[in-house]
Amino acid sequence: MLNASQLAAEMACFPLWSLSPEGKLSREFRFLDFTAAFAFLTAVAIEAEKLNHHPEIRNVYNRVSLELTTHDAGGLTALDFTLAARIEARFA
Amino acid sequence: MLNASQLAAEMACFPLWSLSPEGKLSREFRFLDFTAAFAFLTAVAIEAEKLNHHPEIRNVYNRVSLELTTHDAGGLTALDFTLAARIEARFA
Amino acid sequence: MLNASQLAAEMACFPLWSLSPEGKLSREFRFLDFTAAFAFLTAVAIEAEKLNHHPEIRNVYNRVSLELTTHDAGGLTALDFTLAARIEARFA
Amino acid sequence: MLNASQLAAEMACFPLWSLSPEGKLSREFRFLDFTAAFAFLTAVAIEAEKLNHHPEIRNVYNRVSLELTTHDAGGLTALDFTLAARIEARFA
Repeated sequence: MLNASQLAAEMACFPLWSLSPEGKLSREFRFLDFTAAFAFLTAVAIEAEKLNHHPEIRNVYNRVSLELTTHDAGGLTALDFTLAARIEARFA
Repeated sequence: MLNASQLAAEMACFPLWSLSPEGKLSREFRFLDFTAAFAFLTAVAIEAEKLNHHPEIRNVYNRVSLELTTHDAGGLTALDFTLAARIEARFA
Repeated sequence: MLNASQLAAEMACFPLWSLSPEGKLSREFRFLDFTAAFAFLTAVAIEAEKLNHHPEIRNVYNRVSLELTTHDAGGLTALDFTLAARIEARFA
Repeated sequence: MLNASQLAAEMACFPLWSLSPEGKLSREFRFLDFTAAFAFLTAVAIEAEKLNHHPEIRNVYNRVSLELTTHDAGGLTALDFTLAARIEARFA
């Protein structure tokens, strides 16, 4: 699990993500419509499975919310930020 | 929006679904793994878009939670049960 | 089935598509990688199913080839160009 | 690349797959409809990307054809059969 200063450094690199009340790395994405949202989710799914690290996904119509945490570590780890970076790269 | 007796009749046909505290038609599905869960979600996405009626989707690893409601009607309508039936048919 | 002048008029609107030897409306798409290609295909799948009109899909890694025709009509119809337009719109 | 006797031994374990004229490991899958076919393809896509080994995919409506080969090796390798086994497991 990242310590406070490591976490602050990582968060500085991900300005569009925030920490949820439970300390999860969170971001909401908006799309033109549901189809665009789900195509994005498909890319997220593939990236997540490749890392064997899966976000909490919420989707309603054109909105996708993702929350990342490392359950085994009881908090955020480098793996969460690796996944966040790959997700960013899929959000064209 | 369905009245109480219509709703009771529909719910009787969907014994694996329940009403959430906010009155949404809800069901959780479990799969062998994330890939199986996401393949199911892909079928749900296609069915939802065909009906132009989209569930609230939650997914964490092998669990998928779906909540259905008709926002325009302020509650459950026949359309929610139509979608629920199509979702059921995709859950092999 | 479109006659020759209708077909020529439609083809003029789709300069990136061509007619295959068998007269199908064809286009190849290239992506950064497989994941991007498959996310696009997911959007194509949803659009196709909504129109109940399905392309011939070929995919190898980052390349997607689509061929459209209307089997019932024995050739190209307006529906093929409707689907082509929707596919174009998903190719960001 | 597998030699002839290794190949014969593997093929014996995959009775539903055949060798295409170009020596690719091939199988056609049929589904109830397009949506079921595409849900399966989504699982195949995830498995393929995890192995970084991608089949040639063809899909028309409810039919999916997959051809596997290892381009770098100029023929079939153990990796093709690993992917085939994972694809089989997704075909419920």
